[in-house]
Amino acid sequence: MSDANDKYSLLDTIASPADLRKLDPGQLPQLCSEIRSFLIEHLAVNPGHFASSMGAVELTVALHYVFNTPYDRLVWDVGHQAYGHKLLTGRREAFVNNRKLGGLSGFPNPDESIYDTFAAGHASNSISAALGMAVASMLKHEEPRRNVVAIVGDASISGGLAFEGLNNAANTPNNLLIVLNDNDMSIDHNVGALNSHLAHLTASRWYNKFRFKLYNILKKSGIISPRRRGALLRFNNSLKSLLTSSQNIFEGLNIRYFGPFDGHDVQKLVKVMTDIRDMEGPRILHLRTVKGKGYAPAEKDPAAWHAPGKFDPATGVRLSSDKPGKPLKYQDVFGKTLLELAEKDPDIVAITAAMPSGTSAAIMQERMPDRVFDVGISEGHAVTFAGGLAKEGLKPFVAIYSSFLQRAYDHIIHDVALHSLPVTFCIDRAGIVGEDGATHHGAFDLAYMRTVPGMTIAAPRNEHELRNLMFTAATTAHGPFAIRYPRGAGHNPDWHNDMAVLPVGKGAFLRRGKQLAILTLGPVGDVAIDAAEMAAEKGFDVAVADMRFLKPLDTDILKEVAAAAMPVITVEDGTVDGGLGGAVTEWAAEFAPAMKVHRLGMPDKFVPQGTPAQLTEICGFDKVHIFNEIINILGK
Amino acid sequence: MSDANDKYSLLDTIASPADLRKLDPGQLPQLCSEIRSFLIEHLAVNPGHFASSMGAVELTVALHYVFNTPYDRLVWDVGHQAYGHKLLTGRREAFVNNRKLGGLSGFPNPDESIYDTFAAGHASNSISAALGMAVASMLKHEEPRRNVVAIVGDASISGGLAFEGLNNAANTPNNLLIVLNDNDMSIDHNVGALNSHLAHLTASRWYNKFRFKLYNILKKSGIISPRRRGALLRFNNSLKSLLTSSQNIFEGLNIRYFGPFDGHDVQKLVKVMTDIRDMEGPRILHLRTVKGKGYAPAEKDPAAWHAPGKFDPATGVRLSSDKPGKPLKYQDVFGKTLLELAEKDPDIVAITAAMPSGTSAAIMQERMPDRVFDVGISEGHAVTFAGGLAKEGLKPFVAIYSSFLQRAYDHIIHDVALHSLPVTFCIDRAGIVGEDGATHHGAFDLAYMRTVPGMTIAAPRNEHELRNLMFTAATTAHGPFAIRYPRGAGHNPDWHNDMAVLPVGKGAFLRRGKQLAILTLGPVGDVAIDAAEMAAEKGFDVAVADMRFLKPLDTDILKEVAAAAMPVITVEDGTVDGGLGGAVTEWAAEFAPAMKVHRLGMPDKFVPQGTPAQLTEICGFDKVHIFNEIINILGK
Repeated sequence: MSDANDKYSLLDTIASPADLRKLDPGQLPQLCSEIRSFLIEHLAVNPGHFASSMGAVELTVALHYVFNTPYDRLVWDVGHQAYGHKLLTGRREAFVNNRKLGGLSGFPNPDESIYDTFAAGHASNSISAALGMAVASMLKHEEPRRNVVAIVGDASISGGLAFEGLNNAANTPNNLLIVLNDNDMSIDHNVGALNSHLAHLTASRWYNKFRFKLYNILKKSGIISPRRRGALLRFNNSLKSLLTSSQNIFEGLNIRYFGPFDGHDVQKLVKVMTDIRDMEGPRILHLRTVKGKGYAPAEKDPAAWHAPGKFDPATGVRLSSDKPGKPLKYQDVFGKTLLELAEKDPDIVAITAAMPSGTSAAIMQERMPDRVFDVGISEGHAVTFAGGLAKEGLKPFVAIYSSFLQRAYDHIIHDVALHSLPVTFCIDRAGIVGEDGATHHGAFDLAYMRTVPGMTIAAPRNEHELRNLMFTAATTAHGPFAIRYPRGAGHNPDWHNDMAVLPVGKGAFLRRGKQLAILTLGPVGDVAIDAAEMAAEKGFDVAVADMRFLKPLDTDILKEVAAAAMPVITVEDGTVDGGLGGAVTEWAAEFAPAMKVHRLGMPDKFVPQGTPAQLTEICGFDKVHIFNEIINILGK
Repeated sequence: MSDANDKYSLLDTIASPADLRKLDPGQLPQLCSEIRSFLIEHLAVNPGHFASSMGAVELTVALHYVFNTPYDRLVWDVGHQAYGHKLLTGRREAFVNNRKLGGLSGFPNPDESIYDTFAAGHASNSISAALGMAVASMLKHEEPRRNVVAIVGDASISGGLAFEGLNNAANTPNNLLIVLNDNDMSIDHNVGALNSHLAHLTASRWYNKFRFKLYNILKKSGIISPRRRGALLRFNNSLKSLLTSSQNIFEGLNIRYFGPFDGHDVQKLVKVMTDIRDMEGPRILHLRTVKGKGYAPAEKDPAAWHAPGKFDPATGVRLSSDKPGKPLKYQDVFGKTLLELAEKDPDIVAITAAMPSGTSAAIMQERMPDRVFDVGISEGHAVTFAGGLAKEGLKPFVAIYSSFLQRAYDHIIHDVALHSLPVTFCIDRAGIVGEDGATHHGAFDLAYMRTVPGMTIAAPRNEHELRNLMFTAATTAHGPFAIRYPRGAGHNPDWHNDMAVLPVGKGAFLRRGKQLAILTLGPVGDVAIDAAEMAAEKGFDVAVADMRFLKPLDTDILKEVAAAAMPVITVEDGTVDGGLGGAVTEWAAEFAPAMKVHRLGMPDKFVPQGTPAQLTEICGFDKVHIFNEIINILGK
């Protein structure tokens, strides 16, 4: 046999978890090692989330070994740690198409596999969802008992949703097992009191062993019953506090706690999970893991290796696709501009929800750590906290990805907009994001932000406009101000202009024309120009206006277009219902009923993963589709 | 002096908290008693939230006595306990117009008074907002130190947002004081692990005294410093666990904890608050209070007395406005129908977020306690939990008020709609709610729900349709299904029809006509008929169609209207941008560009409190406004 065949000699035998369960426990360390090799080999050339999955190999193997999947349910939180799970559940060959159009999703996806039990992508939902599944199983009196396991990271568990789930889990009859995968990392470094708390849990092995034996004795003797569980737990918890001189927040909630254990000792994990698998009531198994485990460069710098891009597996050198002179990412223009503004205005502060690197708020954070607040995975709190800061006269800039900001919809309305507080929302990853797929596209922000009274909503067409809009918000805003910009790089290496105030609610014609007007928002304006130029070659005279603001709309542009009796195409990188197209049709219905409006953008369905170019084409607002729409309208 | 003057002899001297601070501590019990008398006298005739404010009298007096308001900030959570606060802050005479149009808001409102520091109405936001204010004060190096106090109930603190706030408060330099007003009640009875936890906190007085002394000694000796706070707290917490054999979740988060104290001993409260006022770092003061305190009928049944309506102060008899034969409230039709459906289908389960009475889910809960889940104030969890239940084959009905469901916008998208799970959202209090005002109007649900791919959105015009829609969801839905209905009573005492499946996406003409078509959603259809009949008297022939479904739209109706070349008026009890009017204009833009659409509904601004009739008129979709719109269009 060749090396190539040898290196996955165990992994190759596993078509499903049933095959895994045929192995001896003694073979599992080798299997883990093969999974790691496979991940390194594949992710080096086909980028994806790396360090999280590397750290979860043993717990993944142990879970599928001990639990009867798919009858038993594994619910992954966020899910970028679930590559090992995908490899063990019949998707090893498909993995080459991970995160590609038509290929595997980068996250668990129930439409992809029966082993993927619930939607993942947004943090902290696993406990609530798994609790629902566990309660359903109990209500349906399923035989044999169906076990449900939520696997949640230490960053995710600090989210309010996870706490709500824990709070309810402790109070509703269920047999949920929560595996806490504690690598002491978020995507960036972890923050928050709960995290400090986890770091100080010092339950010793002998204590757990002791209590576990006690528990089994009590159970056999019939002293334990569901009704008595509360009292016993309180005894247990007091005992433990006394023995270990530490508080345990989970036991404060009356959820049985086991751990912490070494999350990389797969045989031990099998033993522990087997022991606690059939216990009754909600339980937490606390595992300590190392993000990036088994690949030295990733262990050393797990934040950088969260999603490292392509790399050389032998040397650990990440192959940057950035070339000198290449335009910055929008997020970096945001980050550098934020620092620049903050240096001039002491009232400017910034808030990120566990994403200092992902949003580039880290650029300001490095220089002004006291004025940048990383509040952890808690988008709702981030916004309400910003409301409090603004109420006392500061100028908070809240940097959150579009799809995650959905979590804060009520907080935006109730805690910011209701009293016109000057909070600036810097909405990163707005529009199509590409390979992260349906859970991560920033599809809805234009539509849901537009429902908020008093909200100013802007989208820069390029780096200079982003800077100008930030400057405008910082120097003139008297109420909430949203600036949405896309994932990835802009187009202008010379990003650093002298900032100027842009008049709120004013767009600009990018191209004059007499037959039809394309109205756009954001960088898609340049695509519209290309389409207009294609149309010009066919003899059509098409105007392009960058509305720049979704709210308030530039009614001068609209009136001018209406006066010229031009048909209109709206183009936006967002859901076509309720956003720019919606706003323009509503305006037209009221003020220019003769105006014909055609709307292009993301459809009213969930958009899968793929490259941005592929997805823009599928959604129908790439250059060719815009051109075709022009021809359809004017060619007739 | 007459009795009338005597009975408020202290209260009458207090124009602002500065006057309060001139009193001797010994006079405070009498003041509290006067405040209670005032509340009883006024709320008996002008209904409002009663029991919460009665329970918070002493803590309110103590806070304004000890803290230097308005320089120091009080942030009330939810705020229906803040009537006493309003009486002490110059609004005693205005209280007669509490909750009336142009009068006082039923909740703290920064636009109303400098003493109302932050928006209140939606639960659990006070810690996050107050933390923002406390951090801002620290960043601005304000002198003298500005104290910030969040006052939060034991129900509110179990919300995920409050936990996110606590988690961040424990980890960010600040001097926030959190007053936990623990009456062991939500609006209904309290649920959840945190609540059980609070009930078992048994810190004794001597322990608190001992630790407090120890703390002061350590502080004076310089052993305590901000850097060392964590270590000291852990010591403190272990000590306490050891001494009291109890866990304390707050100290698990490294927030200093004081209590529990009797929240009705105003002089003791003054002393304790004075002692801890100037301490550094985040602190929790845990007060035990009695909801409805000081009024026996309310103490006995605090849930009924949360918002009791008018009552006889002498006897405690609540003066029901329900007359025999009067139509049921929509919520009761929902509750009774839910039970009826659940009796026939074992897969139906129900979820409420701390509102079994408010939503009438209690009707099913009484009979089937195992199949109704009160998850506490946690709307996000409620929805994700429902997703988990649905994933395992159950049919969850989630009953949440429209404005509170905003908290779950992301959960609806990510945890239900993304994989088309059959969760039915019963959206109560949709549209104008009246006296609860801006924070409680269900203004946005039509617009934000419409952005969700795959969502079915329906609004019953009457009780029979509500039942039919629930039956349709229960028996035919394969994906998320939203049914929105208003606050208050319907119109038909004979609500109990034989339920039938309604075809999804099909409305009905209520009135035929040839000159103009009014398209409506929900009970406002009847108002439109009235307006059409007024117009008929003027010789205009107006059709009215109840669309019944916002999504999918009934395109047959739209095509018929378009074919007849009739202008259209859309009328909806919701924000006019992005809802029914938006959907119809977008459809018209694409398929019937000649159609003229006029939109009536709630404006793009926050609507204040008032009676529903007043507010509908102000918003411009009452009978007269609709009639005028008809005349405007056809009269020309």
